[in-house]
Amino acid sequence: MLERIKLTDLQSKVMTAEESAKFFEDGMTVGSSGFTRGGDTKVVLKAVAERAKSENLKITLVTGASLGHGTDAALVESGALKKRLPFQVDTVMRKNINAGNILFIDQHLGETAEHILDGQFKINLGVLEVAEILEDGSLVPTTSIGNNAEIAANADKLIIEINTSIPTNIKGIHDIYSVEEYGKRTPINITSCDTKIGTETIKVDPSKIVGIVFHDIQDAPGDIQPADEATAAIAENIVKFFEKEVEEGRLTKSLMPLQCGIGKVANAVLGGLEHSDFENLVMYSEVLQDSTFDLIDSGKMKFASASSMTVSQECYDRVIGNIESYKGKILLRPQSISNSAEVIRRLGIIGINTSLECDIYGNVNSTHVSGTHMMNGIGGSGDFARNAFISIFVTASIAKGGNISSIVPMVSHTDHTEHDVDIIVTEQGLADLRGLAPRERAIEIINNCVHPDYKAELLSYFERACAERGGQTPHILEEAFSWHTRLKQTGSMKKEELLVLNH
Amino acid sequence: MLERIKLTDLQSKVMTAEESAKFFEDGMTVGSSGFTRGGDTKVVLKAVAERAKSENLKITLVTGASLGHGTDAALVESGALKKRLPFQVDTVMRKNINAGNILFIDQHLGETAEHILDGQFKINLGVLEVAEILEDGSLVPTTSIGNNAEIAANADKLIIEINTSIPTNIKGIHDIYSVEEYGKRTPINITSCDTKIGTETIKVDPSKIVGIVFHDIQDAPGDIQPADEATAAIAENIVKFFEKEVEEGRLTKSLMPLQCGIGKVANAVLGGLEHSDFENLVMYSEVLQDSTFDLIDSGKMKFASASSMTVSQECYDRVIGNIESYKGKILLRPQSISNSAEVIRRLGIIGINTSLECDIYGNVNSTHVSGTHMMNGIGGSGDFARNAFISIFVTASIAKGGNISSIVPMVSHTDHTEHDVDIIVTEQGLADLRGLAPRERAIEIINNCVHPDYKAELLSYFERACAERGGQTPHILEEAFSWHTRLKQTGSMKKEELLVLNH
Repeated sequence: MLERIKLTDLQSKVMTAEESAKFFEDGMTVGSSGFTRGGDTKVVLKAVAERAKSENLKITLVTGASLGHGTDAALVESGALKKRLPFQVDTVMRKNINAGNILFIDQHLGETAEHILDGQFKINLGVLEVAEILEDGSLVPTTSIGNNAEIAANADKLIIEINTSIPTNIKGIHDIYSVEEYGKRTPINITSCDTKIGTETIKVDPSKIVGIVFHDIQDAPGDIQPADEATAAIAENIVKFFEKEVEEGRLTKSLMPLQCGIGKVANAVLGGLEHSDFENLVMYSEVLQDSTFDLIDSGKMKFASASSMTVSQECYDRVIGNIESYKGKILLRPQSISNSAEVIRRLGIIGINTSLECDIYGNVNSTHVSGTHMMNGIGGSGDFARNAFISIFVTASIAKGGNISSIVPMVSHTDHTEHDVDIIVTEQGLADLRGLAPRERAIEIINNCVHPDYKAELLSYFERACAERGGQTPHILEEAFSWHTRLKQTGSMKKEELLVLNH
Repeated sequence: MLERIKLTDLQSKVMTAEESAKFFEDGMTVGSSGFTRGGDTKVVLKAVAERAKSENLKITLVTGASLGHGTDAALVESGALKKRLPFQVDTVMRKNINAGNILFIDQHLGETAEHILDGQFKINLGVLEVAEILEDGSLVPTTSIGNNAEIAANADKLIIEINTSIPTNIKGIHDIYSVEEYGKRTPINITSCDTKIGTETIKVDPSKIVGIVFHDIQDAPGDIQPADEATAAIAENIVKFFEKEVEEGRLTKSLMPLQCGIGKVANAVLGGLEHSDFENLVMYSEVLQDSTFDLIDSGKMKFASASSMTVSQECYDRVIGNIESYKGKILLRPQSISNSAEVIRRLGIIGINTSLECDIYGNVNSTHVSGTHMMNGIGGSGDFARNAFISIFVTASIAKGGNISSIVPMVSHTDHTEHDVDIIVTEQGLADLRGLAPRERAIEIINNCVHPDYKAELLSYFERACAERGGQTPHILEEAFSWHTRLKQTGSMKKEELLVLNH
């Protein structure tokens, strides 16, 4: 184990997770590695949660994105969290956020590093998972980068978790680059998904390392749900759209760099590309998923760049066990770079993200159930949607057995405005909103995306809004949320007569 | 006059505006110069409007932003417009947009050039105001750039208006640069407000020029309203905030590059800086206004970059009459560059934009009166707010003699989500939302920004929303727009008892 601390002076810093937990103080802002289960800290924060069970110890926790292994839940349950950012997916945490017990800052993932740099979140203590510490003290990351580089540079103190389950030859799949302070910044010189602009390791002042903890715990495997009928239809609609764009000369068979949100739709879309005529695909995304590696292994995808990998156990074993063979095919970058507005706009990305609900004008709610309750967070969807070449949002047209229509008169919370939404896809069809004004967008969405059970009422709403109120974006404000309030009162967005009819 | 056509072959293309109007065909997409009254086409589109009075001639019109001299109104009134983008400020046009007579695409100003390049708006015919045509056919722009470079490069045919009221030595205040097509794009290499990366003139294929029309009409002067009490208080609150940031070491006396939306608040804020301790200020904005030139002339501002200048007649005479003395102090750029996400993020801009209404969580409506009726458009506010170092939104706390509260439970239309709004300022005070979660933001906004007449009810809404519904962003959807519907029914957002009390 100790051979993983090549800067031998640091070998004296090895301690248990419990010992390292003593560095945490009430009120601290803690920065931690971890981005959608990849490369998260696996033992130190759990030990902090243990400590907090018997002590008044509340921290603000800044990560890359969500964590695995129930760490967020453990922190919440022990009362160790005051504030959390920028993303989470944990059931226990979600419940406590919505109950007002934990303050949650839902943040564009590409923006968090800026606030570590500008002191909005001054990191008192950082906890970073690494594969190895090199002779100069620099850190070899594991399966994600997230905000690790900025945490390493800006934290007062650092605790390092060395994960011995990660082979040390993972070195070489990372490209570490942080922007300079304002006034000295130069362009982020990425002109292709595979451009390397940084270093293979994270530079750090070794004197800041106060503790090193060993473990051999693998990343929690991603929970990949198989494609259902709706998901498969959505994927098919997107592939058909791509084929049409190629046919009409607006895209080539290599498409443009792809970005996909996490989950079964993304996996289904990328899966759809595997059995298609597309070739030499590239990806510039946040997370590498099973489907990414399937495309790489099948020769369909040339290169994939992201900030993290979150895959099934099978895929994890395949990739981590053969990491050498993926060098030159994948890169993990800081999330300020994977999600950089500058790079996304320059590369011309096709962004595919999931919407919780969208409205007839193409505004998208990605986060808030019924306008109030946080699901996961906006994540990187805004970073990509705003600057993408084509910004696609996907959702099944209905949820909860048909009692919820994902397309509503007005979204109950807005994460992405109509300005940033080019295409909406459901299993019903695809609405191409490019070049359309709001009233045209409404017709396109209602005609192509809405479930038949809700189509007539939605069209009626739109027509009455135009006739009775008018405007650039016709709405009847008294009715705009009537579907949501009906859902709350009756358990269904359907009108009573329709409910009776269907039962 | 003819000496302004240095490429003598083109001198045969001189014609009247009426003759040039014959190149317009029904269904065409027309690109025109003009950005907030600066450098707009002044005679050709007016002649098109004349033609449309007696012919079926409807075009889609793509400009930089709004036009002066009533051109938009003339086009609307003659029925010449089918679709308009990306911005407007005309009363007649506004009325017709809201009546559904004209399709209006309200677009981030930094994005329009992308859609000229990607063919979403293929320009059939371009109309550009210039000061001169040089020997190689290249064009010397006048008082704005807007999307002129992309229109010149991508239009099938071009009509040039030569404005002889503009001195030809205006050449040198422009920096023309367009991004390459995808796959060949390199960074936009601006690292300081004054970095020049392009050419002084717009390159064009002279064979595309089908007509040249002379005129000597100056830009319509900007309509600068004097600061009222509320405006002055808002400006004072912002200056105080800047002073505090300097005191606490987060800003220097040179602040950061400033961006200001158009209007009296912006002018008042910049005016406030003139009589302050700040020094060596720089600006990276969309529009140079009177206040910009006042700061430059007083020595407070070193450099200002924008896409257009829109000033009073006095200021216009001062600047255009002494243009040589402003070289090296100002630059006009394409709006894809002045509003580039990449450059805005890199330079670390302080963006000050106007909100029509904002809500207790800091979501901002910049465009839609009562959620339906278009005012002007989102303009560049989104380009700046998303990528700014500090994103500030200003509004008077009340409007219509107190019958409207600009801070409402929920915005009736969302242009900027809470993720992109750092500071809200009214004449009542300033809410610093940086690092706060939604429930904290609500308290900060209610305490600092809301007018006393509305404070108790807004606090009551927030407290009841927390208690009765909870969530990350507590709302009572049935009540969220109750202030808007009350306004519609009673003419005031105030509760009846409060109305009685106040009369």
